[in-house]
Amino acid sequence: MHHVSTPAPQFAPRQSIAQVEEGHELAPKFDAAGLIACITTDAGTGDVLMLGYMNREALTRTIETGEAHYWSRSRQCLWHKGATSALVQQVEELRIDDDQDAIWLRVRVAGSGASCHVGYRSCFYRRVPVGAQRQHGSALVFTENEKTFDPQAVYGDVPNPTVL
Amino acid sequence: MHHVSTPAPQFAPRQSIAQVEEGHELAPKFDAAGLIACITTDAGTGDVLMLGYMNREALTRTIETGEAHYWSRSRQCLWHKGATSALVQQVEELRIDDDQDAIWLRVRVAGSGASCHVGYRSCFYRRVPVGAQRQHGSALVFTENEKTFDPQAVYGDVPNPTVL
Repeated sequence: MHHVSTPAPQFAPRQSIAQVEEGHELAPKFDAAGLIACITTDAGTGDVLMLGYMNREALTRTIETGEAHYWSRSRQCLWHKGATSALVQQVEELRIDDDQDAIWLRVRVAGSGASCHVGYRSCFYRRVPVGAQRQHGSALVFTENEKTFDPQAVYGDVPNPTVL
Repeated sequence: MHHVSTPAPQFAPRQSIAQVEEGHELAPKFDAAGLIACITTDAGTGDVLMLGYMNREALTRTIETGEAHYWSRSRQCLWHKGATSALVQQVEELRIDDDQDAIWLRVRVAGSGASCHVGYRSCFYRRVPVGAQRQHGSALVFTENEKTFDPQAVYGDVPNPTVL
């Protein structure tokens, strides 16, 4: 890919509700830990792949490169998604919400198309029955039947990021 | 709607990574504030409508009733979405992610179909140019041209939830 040099993104100070909700300036709100939540969906299927978090640097790099970068809360480091697994997420569209405290990325995933460290395409591979659906039981139902890769082969001895 | 009586949902204690990632028990992880993040998408279009948060009670009521309930961080109260605006979210599917610290709701919205207090269908009504897209400028681009309702008429004097 040909990289075109563009200025570093500027984050505007948050000055008014009208500016934040109705304006054209990017004025993201980072929480007390310096993070903003990021929903990542598959640009092809529309499925939610993961919920991640970004700090200022991760958001800056995502905007500059067009590849998803996150802040790993379990490893406490900048995380260029796909650096280990090769499953890089190319950003087709980045959106910000009304009060600018959440990001939505629409991405194309390289390789097998998976985004979940357990091996599934989406991290959201289980359904919880709700309302009348619970007449048929309340156990979680798997929505993906097969893993797209073997996590042990890809990640080896990298610690599992799930925290109990 | 005919309500069928089913047992209250049980949240299992989190005992092992295998149980949390590969099991059939709902064992959600609430953060230090007692909340779990919830991505809500339109079951028809696949668009992300909002990112909300649930406490134990909001998740319990959502599972029991099949209508989305959240915890309002700005108002610090249980929030039955649509109670003020009539834009109730009927849950078609509730999913939980690998480490069970995020929820994905696929919903059908009543009435005009909007989910955003500013008046748009989705809270994510602005695009942030990334990568090569920035050659054409870096200002936010509106992806919805018209509001679906007049927030002043619907919410009147209810305080705006956006926090600077």
